[in-house]
Amino acid sequence: MQTVPPRSRQERVRDSRAALETSIDVWVATATTGEDGTVRPYLVPLSLAWLGERVVVALPADSRTTHGLRAAGSARLAVGPTRDVVMIDAVVERIEPVREAPELAERYAARSDWDPREDAGSYVFAVLRPERIQAWRESSELAGRTVMLEGRWLA
Amino acid sequence: MQTVPPRSRQERVRDSRAALETSIDVWVATATTGEDGTVRPYLVPLSLAWLGERVVVALPADSRTTHGLRAAGSARLAVGPTRDVVMIDAVVERIEPVREAPELAERYAARSDWDPREDAGSYVFAVLRPERIQAWRESSELAGRTVMLEGRWLA
Repeated sequence: MQTVPPRSRQERVRDSRAALETSIDVWVATATTGEDGTVRPYLVPLSLAWLGERVVVALPADSRTTHGLRAAGSARLAVGPTRDVVMIDAVVERIEPVREAPELAERYAARSDWDPREDAGSYVFAVLRPERIQAWRESSELAGRTVMLEGRWLA
Repeated sequence: MQTVPPRSRQERVRDSRAALETSIDVWVATATTGEDGTVRPYLVPLSLAWLGERVVVALPADSRTTHGLRAAGSARLAVGPTRDVVMIDAVVERIEPVREAPELAERYAARSDWDPREDAGSYVFAVLRPERIQAWRESSELAGRTVMLEGRWLA
């Protein structure tokens, strides 16, 4: 079935960087633990800004995603369609109110397709630092899918 | 910015059903708890089969997603691109080895784009029952996004 040869690591690093720089959205998977100890996975699409090698998203201060990021200190992200994915295991570098981060707000608004400063709600920025990134299209690319490890691009 | 009027609930129910019936992939968000109690979110794209009002995926028996499904008994799923999403909170109805589910394997192979019976690995089917489904395109559709509640379509 699969006839397209797998991309080299170098190609995947280049493609992953391009996807992060040009994509307008990111899937953000988080999880929280209920009072009874049950783990509750969560997932939403958010507007993405790739700034200084960080994934920056803006979200309501009291959203489930914000709670999950605070609780676990990590998230798993996906950029791209399901057959051309960039999967990111990221740690939460910081979460700060939009109104207290004017410089970041400026850069986010310039890069993203909306400006949380214009929203009446209480928004925060979550700055997520990628630790591991994997890139693959179809099953032929599952081997060699790691393009970043311990925060360092592999090519 | 947003000029397209939001869809009615009825339209969203119809669109969501169509997306489930025609989409070939689903994002599956799960989570596990580490030995130190840390919650670890996980996310992967998988091949989807919508069979009997259930999301059916096939995955390696020892994958992180399988472990997460077993541990939490639930998952959050997404079908469609980030600006036309069908978000599904699902419970794990059952997980069974592919080789012990010949009828399901037949239906899955007929609907999906691959056949786990042909793979040398040890695969299981996860049968996920939607409890809540939400559908939206842009922020104008966040209101009225719930199309299924407690397992029942709302239109």
